[in-house]
Amino acid sequence: MEAVELIARKRDGGEHSGEEIAFLLDAYLAGKLPDYQMAAWLMAVCIRGMTRAETLALTQAMVASGVVLDLSSIPGFKVDKHSTGGVGDKISLIAAPLAAACGVIVPKLSGRSLAHTGGTLDKLESVPGLTVNLEPERFLSQLRDIGIAIAAQSARMVPADKAIYALRDATATVPSIPLIAASVMSKKIAAGADAIVLDVKAGRGAFMAGPEQAAALATEMVQIGEGAGRRTVALVTAMDSPLGRCVGNALEVEESLAALAGEGDEELLEVAIAVAREMCRLAGVADDPAQALASGAGRDRFERMLLAQGGRLVDGLPRAAAQAPLRADRDGWVAGIDALEVGQACLELGVGRLKKDDVIDPGAGVVIEVPVGARVKQGAVLAVVHGRSSELCERGVTRLKTAWRISSEPTRRPAHLLFRVDRTGVHPAG
Amino acid sequence: MEAVELIARKRDGGEHSGEEIAFLLDAYLAGKLPDYQMAAWLMAVCIRGMTRAETLALTQAMVASGVVLDLSSIPGFKVDKHSTGGVGDKISLIAAPLAAACGVIVPKLSGRSLAHTGGTLDKLESVPGLTVNLEPERFLSQLRDIGIAIAAQSARMVPADKAIYALRDATATVPSIPLIAASVMSKKIAAGADAIVLDVKAGRGAFMAGPEQAAALATEMVQIGEGAGRRTVALVTAMDSPLGRCVGNALEVEESLAALAGEGDEELLEVAIAVAREMCRLAGVADDPAQALASGAGRDRFERMLLAQGGRLVDGLPRAAAQAPLRADRDGWVAGIDALEVGQACLELGVGRLKKDDVIDPGAGVVIEVPVGARVKQGAVLAVVHGRSSELCERGVTRLKTAWRISSEPTRRPAHLLFRVDRTGVHPAG
Repeated sequence: MEAVELIARKRDGGEHSGEEIAFLLDAYLAGKLPDYQMAAWLMAVCIRGMTRAETLALTQAMVASGVVLDLSSIPGFKVDKHSTGGVGDKISLIAAPLAAACGVIVPKLSGRSLAHTGGTLDKLESVPGLTVNLEPERFLSQLRDIGIAIAAQSARMVPADKAIYALRDATATVPSIPLIAASVMSKKIAAGADAIVLDVKAGRGAFMAGPEQAAALATEMVQIGEGAGRRTVALVTAMDSPLGRCVGNALEVEESLAALAGEGDEELLEVAIAVAREMCRLAGVADDPAQALASGAGRDRFERMLLAQGGRLVDGLPRAAAQAPLRADRDGWVAGIDALEVGQACLELGVGRLKKDDVIDPGAGVVIEVPVGARVKQGAVLAVVHGRSSELCERGVTRLKTAWRISSEPTRRPAHLLFRVDRTGVHPAG
Repeated sequence: MEAVELIARKRDGGEHSGEEIAFLLDAYLAGKLPDYQMAAWLMAVCIRGMTRAETLALTQAMVASGVVLDLSSIPGFKVDKHSTGGVGDKISLIAAPLAAACGVIVPKLSGRSLAHTGGTLDKLESVPGLTVNLEPERFLSQLRDIGIAIAAQSARMVPADKAIYALRDATATVPSIPLIAASVMSKKIAAGADAIVLDVKAGRGAFMAGPEQAAALATEMVQIGEGAGRRTVALVTAMDSPLGRCVGNALEVEESLAALAGEGDEELLEVAIAVAREMCRLAGVADDPAQALASGAGRDRFERMLLAQGGRLVDGLPRAAAQAPLRADRDGWVAGIDALEVGQACLELGVGRLKKDDVIDPGAGVVIEVPVGARVKQGAVLAVVHGRSSELCERGVTRLKTAWRISSEPTRRPAHLLFRVDRTGVHPAG
């Protein structure tokens, strides 16, 4: 096979066989296909698209590039959960323990913060002593003991994804539904669970802006998952405003603990329970996550997981050295809080990494005091910015001023659950 | 400026400013933009296209990447000529001396064989002693003395083209009208002539198969030339069958000498005179190339040029060691001779280079005995293959068998001159 001929085929909108896709990927990973040829092919894919068969072939070739986790020694039905990334998205920290408390085995491999979106690993690591680097044996034994583990993916799993993602990032070939679907699903399939629940975010703070585009990505991922023999369901949920009240690492762990104690933002709990219910449904578990929330079983499971991974909650969560309030400059109703703006302000506060080697500030972030739909008086505190220094916090306040949209008309908080996507298609959520 | 943002713009079908295009090109040449980013951008250009303003900006940035030849010290109007490449295309060797004999100054920078198409430099170098590597001073003084010089482009001219062409070749981004137009025109503009005549080939043996596609490329190149302040005219000519009777280096020089002596294939002379007339017209020269042909002034000018460049025609042209005939396997009329097949057979005989370092066989090639439209009897010699060994010639004969299409119905040789393209648009030729 000639790489140039294959690139030309995709350039002209043609279709590849599974063998051809595996050839390209394997040659790239073996260092036989140079970056510039892969870049040209990725751009052709980005513009011309891929058929479902091609996307499945790419996903499977990516899975085959590394080790696949073998969970067969763990009794029970294993369900993984994945979010495409949002601002204030701590659903994993709430839904996974709730599902585990209902009897679902949750072997979850998570990621780090990416651009303006948070990362479950960074959030968990804000707990003193906690590690997300679990050796396979420890990961498996934790699953056996408490039915839940959230860990970092091993570098030996899907090395193709890391290599290709770095190239996509540098060549403007990230926004491609087949490439995103293959990237996400290859990691989920390699992680070895029996079923997968996807939370596909749509809106200003998500990588997919439009709900229809998010539903298309969800459909692609569900079909790839099913094509690879994994039961897969996706919820498309809103990410125009941050989810819940806190954005930040320790701040979100704290909010998750409160939510699991029943003291959570109403919509945060709604989404978390919806995700946990999908996990239970796929696992064939009859218990209801809402019950696990009410009984405290979910919180108990979460604390056991933190403890099992070395976390010392007794030491308290880190807090930022300084705080500064953002105040309303007029009376009215909060019509919207721009999730992208909040996410970018948090990035500058040290919640995520602007550069690869940046050190995260576990205590930094934003606490929303007045959510979307609430009434506000001029001068009232809309949010509190937490950061390393007063100067940094004040800068965050300035940046956040444009994020709050205050209307003179009453507004309602829009729906968070948009669609449910399964192998039969896209359905209204709820 | 961020390269990734510019790549994303082109990916989405957007337009670049001239500054942005110059930024990308300069960064690439300075080694600051890696191959993979340029490859992704080239693929986006290949699929999304470029506006005329963008193509002109790219052309000018490419010209600015190297030195521009200064011909101002040479009196007279200077006209360059360029062919997009064909099989048996020795038009430059006939038209340029005819135009020079009419008083046009012809400072021509030529290329080498590319894929299955021949190269003027390789043809000229088959003349014993001849050099195409003329230092600027020698090039200028030859123009002053005899009004014509055909030489290799200096590596210091348009270095951007060489760098980008190598990358395009490896990334399936060659077939793009804006990229081809910028590549050709940047070299012609840097070569410093006042006007340019383009011979754009269309058909099986050309890089553009369809006449409409060739006319589109011709239009783009003419408008770029005019946009850069050079009077530019293009002829779109047929390249379904080889042009004339000979394909090969020394064989084509011999055929050109014969043609300039009035003993040429009718259609070869038709195209050569049409090209020479365009050169004269742009130069405002009243003399007719047909007269220069009839009087022998064209042949005289060609011989003076060969001599000035060190060529010793008295030593005779090289001849291949072996020959083998291709015979007709049936009675009929020659309906077509596949130029691509002939070109590829010649490539294997050593007329061109399969690999960069291959050594050319100056005597190798194919002589067509029965052209398109002619009647033929079974067993008659259709062509003679010239090569280094009998074995090589026999292999060439086998390969060529499918190139001749013999019909039981009488056929006519199709028109060679298809369109004439100037700044006012595309017109029927002739």
